[in-house]
Amino acid sequence: MHIGLIGLGKMGNNMRTRLREAGVEVTGFDRNPDVTDVPTVEALVQALPAPRTVWVMVPAGQITDSVIEELNGHLEAGDLVIDGGNSRFTEDFKHAALLAEKGIDYIDAGVSGGVWGVENGYGLMVGGSAEQVERVMPVFDALRPEGPREEGFVHVGEVGAGHYAKMVHNGIEYAMMQAYAEGYELLEKRSDLIKNVPGTFEAWQRGTVVRSWLLELLVRALKEDPTLAKIEGYVEDSGEGRWTIEEAIDNAVPVPTIAASIFARFVSRQDDSPAMKAVAALRNQFGGHAVKSND
Amino acid sequence: MHIGLIGLGKMGNNMRTRLREAGVEVTGFDRNPDVTDVPTVEALVQALPAPRTVWVMVPAGQITDSVIEELNGHLEAGDLVIDGGNSRFTEDFKHAALLAEKGIDYIDAGVSGGVWGVENGYGLMVGGSAEQVERVMPVFDALRPEGPREEGFVHVGEVGAGHYAKMVHNGIEYAMMQAYAEGYELLEKRSDLIKNVPGTFEAWQRGTVVRSWLLELLVRALKEDPTLAKIEGYVEDSGEGRWTIEEAIDNAVPVPTIAASIFARFVSRQDDSPAMKAVAALRNQFGGHAVKSND
Amino acid sequence: MHIGLIGLGKMGNNMRTRLREAGVEVTGFDRNPDVTDVPTVEALVQALPAPRTVWVMVPAGQITDSVIEELNGHLEAGDLVIDGGNSRFTEDFKHAALLAEKGIDYIDAGVSGGVWGVENGYGLMVGGSAEQVERVMPVFDALRPEGPREEGFVHVGEVGAGHYAKMVHNGIEYAMMQAYAEGYELLEKRSDLIKNVPGTFEAWQRGTVVRSWLLELLVRALKEDPTLAKIEGYVEDSGEGRWTIEEAIDNAVPVPTIAASIFARFVSRQDDSPAMKAVAALRNQFGGHAVKSND
Amino acid sequence: MHIGLIGLGKMGNNMRTRLREAGVEVTGFDRNPDVTDVPTVEALVQALPAPRTVWVMVPAGQITDSVIEELNGHLEAGDLVIDGGNSRFTEDFKHAALLAEKGIDYIDAGVSGGVWGVENGYGLMVGGSAEQVERVMPVFDALRPEGPREEGFVHVGEVGAGHYAKMVHNGIEYAMMQAYAEGYELLEKRSDLIKNVPGTFEAWQRGTVVRSWLLELLVRALKEDPTLAKIEGYVEDSGEGRWTIEEAIDNAVPVPTIAASIFARFVSRQDDSPAMKAVAALRNQFGGHAVKSND
Repeated sequence: MHIGLIGLGKMGNNMRTRLREAGVEVTGFDRNPDVTDVPTVEALVQALPAPRTVWVMVPAGQITDSVIEELNGHLEAGDLVIDGGNSRFTEDFKHAALLAEKGIDYIDAGVSGGVWGVENGYGLMVGGSAEQVERVMPVFDALRPEGPREEGFVHVGEVGAGHYAKMVHNGIEYAMMQAYAEGYELLEKRSDLIKNVPGTFEAWQRGTVVRSWLLELLVRALKEDPTLAKIEGYVEDSGEGRWTIEEAIDNAVPVPTIAASIFARFVSRQDDSPAMKAVAALRNQFGGHAVKSND
Repeated sequence: MHIGLIGLGKMGNNMRTRLREAGVEVTGFDRNPDVTDVPTVEALVQALPAPRTVWVMVPAGQITDSVIEELNGHLEAGDLVIDGGNSRFTEDFKHAALLAEKGIDYIDAGVSGGVWGVENGYGLMVGGSAEQVERVMPVFDALRPEGPREEGFVHVGEVGAGHYAKMVHNGIEYAMMQAYAEGYELLEKRSDLIKNVPGTFEAWQRGTVVRSWLLELLVRALKEDPTLAKIEGYVEDSGEGRWTIEEAIDNAVPVPTIAASIFARFVSRQDDSPAMKAVAALRNQFGGHAVKSND
Repeated sequence: MHIGLIGLGKMGNNMRTRLREAGVEVTGFDRNPDVTDVPTVEALVQALPAPRTVWVMVPAGQITDSVIEELNGHLEAGDLVIDGGNSRFTEDFKHAALLAEKGIDYIDAGVSGGVWGVENGYGLMVGGSAEQVERVMPVFDALRPEGPREEGFVHVGEVGAGHYAKMVHNGIEYAMMQAYAEGYELLEKRSDLIKNVPGTFEAWQRGTVVRSWLLELLVRALKEDPTLAKIEGYVEDSGEGRWTIEEAIDNAVPVPTIAASIFARFVSRQDDSPAMKAVAALRNQFGGHAVKSND
Repeated sequence: MHIGLIGLGKMGNNMRTRLREAGVEVTGFDRNPDVTDVPTVEALVQALPAPRTVWVMVPAGQITDSVIEELNGHLEAGDLVIDGGNSRFTEDFKHAALLAEKGIDYIDAGVSGGVWGVENGYGLMVGGSAEQVERVMPVFDALRPEGPREEGFVHVGEVGAGHYAKMVHNGIEYAMMQAYAEGYELLEKRSDLIKNVPGTFEAWQRGTVVRSWLLELLVRALKEDPTLAKIEGYVEDSGEGRWTIEEAIDNAVPVPTIAASIFARFVSRQDDSPAMKAVAALRNQFGGHAVKSND
């Protein structure tokens, strides 16, 4: 098997490594000349045997759009594009339709695992036709973790289903992280009683109901910095959490913990909260309660 | 009618004024010699005609406890104590039981209206026996707003019911304030589109579904400071909101908006969030996402 | 002043009444022959003096789209369309651009007040050019409540700003309703202590911090049915609440109480909750906790 | 090592099995004659070598109280009581103080693992003096999972700290379960797109960020019943989740996801929601929106 891989950033580079170690031939392209195998997307396409398979691993949105448009100019009927980035599932419909005009196939692949994937393998959720998914199964098998295929790979449905599943995965992930974080803060706050916060998380790794990979990562973080003194409580969010809420709203699905997780991140990034200014102003108006002034 | 009033702070002082203007004779006591009418609680009790009525208007908790214990030492059977402070309703059971040993009656009165009460009257929610409530109705009538009695006064039930209703009132109040505040922030954030945020709130005062007294207060605040630039988004909370959630939990009543309002206040008072440090640490661990360091 | 009014349903019909009572001449059109003044939109346009003003008061979405497209075919440069329905603000940009091609002006008007507006007047939030807003001020003055104009009317900004403000208004409204509802449930649940739930709400109408128009409506509802026994706890939602959350997410504004209000409505409409099935299944798996079977 | 074990229900019985398999001698007592080793608590105490160790594994609250009081009557100075049940940490202070009057030692042990513990071992969080914890380490080592001690056992602090940590553990557990459940509902709702919901969860078991033991249990549940058709979405809650929120409130720690999880359970148990009746009533009042009647 020989595939093209566009985007050799943190994720793509690791994936190229894992694919090669598994015996998949990979021609990679990146705008960064230090990591690319070929100088252009066109050269990448020419380097591949037909029918070609090109895995796209670039930031969602405009960059993915432009890469797929460029590929559309170079590929031909029977070729396959796999979008392994974090595109919104609605983008898949658009990309698949564009490529279909020329007879090019399309698969969307949600990829989980972060920087650990190169070693542990990547959890994969894919959407597309059964025929195409079967054709590139050696690629999926190379990327996914050891063990039974069905425990690290799923063909979720037609185009869009892979990214949809990944979106929901990330929504769940947000709420799980928030859950541990709330527990952490509560334990930290009662340091009069809780004499070993890092040790408590460490001890939850075996036997308990809350054991998980995220817990293990929190244990790692607390070993490096037992009170997280070096880290500011400022948290970005990528699109998946927001899209999860929008999808929930479109489908009348209540998602209170996922929404709470996103809102907590929004607050974490504010220097001051306009909303809480308004609450402070109201309390001052009706009760004469003192406000903290910004002097 | 001649009653005693203990506690002449912001609220108590205003209430004395309103009572006197309505023709109720008031002997007030406060530890602050500048405002007190008599030098001691004992002197206050001696100044009152039997059966005596003493309205207690001091901070909830230990101070209310000690005042009621002191009154218990000076009052006699047939007298009446009214706790108009923000005591938790469970305290009422304790106070009523203590006083009942000597035959002293007890009423709990939830009082709403803040600094505006002296002028507008106070919304009153009382708990106690029908007989006692009837006896001091002239006091309630003097304190409550103009208009039909049932629109500004309610005998909610036996002892504890008044403070319970006030507790729930404040829980609702918290969530209403948060609701306006969230809307305020959203309008503020879209200043590219919304050219008149204070004017928008002002225009909601008549005809709209969200018109309320709190809205009028927010309009006042925005007239004084259209972007709330002088106010920090730091908000204290008193006990009632917390008790509301505890009661909700004890009774398996879902209160998501009230809880969200309290949590928003907790966050508003944090310099940094331990929970969000933990989330940032987790993101860094699995995805190599950068964290903001506290250097 | 003589305007056209398209859409004579519950809201439109009332508005025609109020406008006529204020001396504004109204030619109304509705597909319902029982209420319409003219047989077609074309006839309505022909009945109006140039430059024409047509107020559209039909359901948001496709119906509004088609009415505006039809108007676009009949109106001419210098005429004005006002969308008074509950359109999403993003629709305004589309409608204004379409009409602008022919030189037709556009105003979006958020209208609050429900079935009470005919009597109380409607709270109005409008977006558009100052010139056009000024031109139809007699219409706004006829519709808005008595009292100072700025307490029931606001020119929020350019096209879209009116519906944006109305959207936020409704988001706040959702959370306020939920706040009262949570308090109601808590009082109801403690009927051992709270002997007069309707009376408690009634007494909050004067002097308290939570007094509002919504509170007055709840008092009315409780007078008709003191335990709400005849009403099922099933609540629809219209688009504005959902859009508010989507806008909040797009702008990274935390809106926990508004989101909680929407989610509570979603849950209220479920016969059974897939999510809670999953939680029940999990508890059964790890703890052997009994599940309720659907047999 | 020879200990007494009071309470041979689902958990206690399994623990006796695991302890005996590990070579710890166990004399068990239960009111159920089919499972007890001795007829009375007194007989159990007499069967143990001094200094005695008695592990109490009965329901929290009054039953635990009465067992500890009974033990207090039979044990003597130098003996040790371990409460392994789900007592609130504040109960530990009371129990330890009672026993201390006679010189009897006390350890609180939070135990996680459910019905799987007999096979996998139990995650243990203990509070008490270092000396006593050290003395019964063979018991903890027998109960905890295989692997490094610190990954399945922690000495959290003085008396109360063990149950405190377990309480927080359960709070986190609630929110994690809710997170997966929300994701499940969203995937279920989009069955037009997601063709393999159970397979999606199955595939998350390796490589993904959300992999956990709870996820594995959900996979098991979905294998048994792929749409959870046989399970009603009705979920009980035990005390720990509620206590977590109360502690959070007492310490001003925001816990939005944990609170949301509890509230979702409350709602799941309601036939109809008084709060949503109130919202429906309000919508009907202001907008004339139809309500579903309970006829």
